[in-house]
Amino acid sequence: MEDRTRREQASPAVRERVRSSFELQGLMSHLGARITHIGPGRVHIVLPACPEVTQQHGYIHAGATSAVADTAGGYAALTLFDEESDVLTVEYKINLLAPAAGDHLEAIGTVLRSGRTLTVCQLEVYGVRADGARKLVANGQQTLIRVNRPAA
Amino acid sequence: MEDRTRREQASPAVRERVRSSFELQGLMSHLGARITHIGPGRVHIVLPACPEVTQQHGYIHAGATSAVADTAGGYAALTLFDEESDVLTVEYKINLLAPAAGDHLEAIGTVLRSGRTLTVCQLEVYGVRADGARKLVANGQQTLIRVNRPAA
Amino acid sequence: MEDRTRREQASPAVRERVRSSFELQGLMSHLGARITHIGPGRVHIVLPACPEVTQQHGYIHAGATSAVADTAGGYAALTLFDEESDVLTVEYKINLLAPAAGDHLEAIGTVLRSGRTLTVCQLEVYGVRADGARKLVANGQQTLIRVNRPAA
Amino acid sequence: MEDRTRREQASPAVRERVRSSFELQGLMSHLGARITHIGPGRVHIVLPACPEVTQQHGYIHAGATSAVADTAGGYAALTLFDEESDVLTVEYKINLLAPAAGDHLEAIGTVLRSGRTLTVCQLEVYGVRADGARKLVANGQQTLIRVNRPAA
Repeated sequence: MEDRTRREQASPAVRERVRSSFELQGLMSHLGARITHIGPGRVHIVLPACPEVTQQHGYIHAGATSAVADTAGGYAALTLFDEESDVLTVEYKINLLAPAAGDHLEAIGTVLRSGRTLTVCQLEVYGVRADGARKLVANGQQTLIRVNRPAA
Repeated sequence: MEDRTRREQASPAVRERVRSSFELQGLMSHLGARITHIGPGRVHIVLPACPEVTQQHGYIHAGATSAVADTAGGYAALTLFDEESDVLTVEYKINLLAPAAGDHLEAIGTVLRSGRTLTVCQLEVYGVRADGARKLVANGQQTLIRVNRPAA
Repeated sequence: MEDRTRREQASPAVRERVRSSFELQGLMSHLGARITHIGPGRVHIVLPACPEVTQQHGYIHAGATSAVADTAGGYAALTLFDEESDVLTVEYKINLLAPAAGDHLEAIGTVLRSGRTLTVCQLEVYGVRADGARKLVANGQQTLIRVNRPAA
Repeated sequence: MEDRTRREQASPAVRERVRSSFELQGLMSHLGARITHIGPGRVHIVLPACPEVTQQHGYIHAGATSAVADTAGGYAALTLFDEESDVLTVEYKINLLAPAAGDHLEAIGTVLRSGRTLTVCQLEVYGVRADGARKLVANGQQTLIRVNRPAA
């Protein structure tokens, strides 16, 4: 999975566009999430484990797992749009495969099909231990729609 | 929709069990969510709008919307279990139907089918304005599994 | 559930449009399915049980159940479009709640939200016994897109 | 994608078990579908294009596409079970990415996670032209449950 395309960077303009939008998301900042990779059609988001994102057994809450997965997919779609376009999530489906444990989660959104109106992304979330061991904890599929960016 | 069953209360023991579990969820507290109704097979959760739960346009983030929907469905399932059982989300799918705007969101989880192993819930999220006007902003479907409650 | 709206008929022009399209679906005819109700935003399809639609235990195959559910939702969406528009399924998710047994299945597609581009439908499938007893055997949610009808 | 694991065969006993069950599915035979590969955690099913499986524009119906995808996933799960166990689809979600055209469809079910009770599969469906060109036409995710095989 550690292939060449995974680390390919999007253009500086695209990365700047994604980062600016991400910084406007109060939820991502409130959860402590940050973007760690912006490639063409692929975005990674890291969510550190902390008491503020847990469910009742101390694992990371499915809602937090989903929030970073949904966001990674949305920005993966956005990397392939022109600067006049913005993106909205139409729907997504996610399977929680294992307790979301570890030092942090890494959510990866990857564009599967980019159409004129609709984009479909694959969503993967890994639990990553402090020693680097990784486990797939959630897997999903997401549909997004391209919309015109509201005039500033 | 304001029918009689909607306001039926679960037993005091069940409500106490749900509230105790909910209070252990760091994420719900961190987002400012609270449980407003616990009925047999039906739970309501309210999420007040605030900058900490927004996406880039100032609406409530799909991740926050999903988090309260998933939680409402999980506790709706739990209301029908005995006290030895706990619940885990297997998967869910959610459509974001409209921008999640308003004074607060109300997420409603309703059990559609309660089986020995698996429970299926319907998830609805309404955007509620300060004047009380309501609009369905998200609709979903969730599968949960019953597990043995870990010994304390 | 047997409410007045359930039996409201769509206009004759809409019903004719839906029936004409349905008759072009080789699969529906091959499975023995027929449309039994066309209302505004709501379509019913009946699938008789027979050996040609079974899975390995003799129940109706999830694929046949899904096929009539998907089709009911698609035509429910179409009833709300003008005659220049056609509909395509973007995606759907379906839970199989119980073995699909009985004399026939009744699939019901109901529009939950009709937008300019996208429509979201609820899908329900009931197993109906010869004595009329009904049981919900599948429940789903579907996203559809409006497209221009190809010129004849 | 044409990697070594793709063509690895399951044991003769497993292949026989899958084929015997498949032959009991009236729907698969009625649609003209056949199994073309049975590997450990991976099953391929081919559906030839013909008028009996079409929707109103002559493409293969989403219901037929889903039926073979669901079946491929179910048997992929079954390849990893012991002979006392059988499998039921709990739910699936599928995105229709492109018109299902070509000489035939190839549905591929791949186990993503095999647990004691639940299995999660990835579903892919390719449209294959007579010249061998392939296009991903549908992508999905499926949850299955292991059940005891009914005594013969």
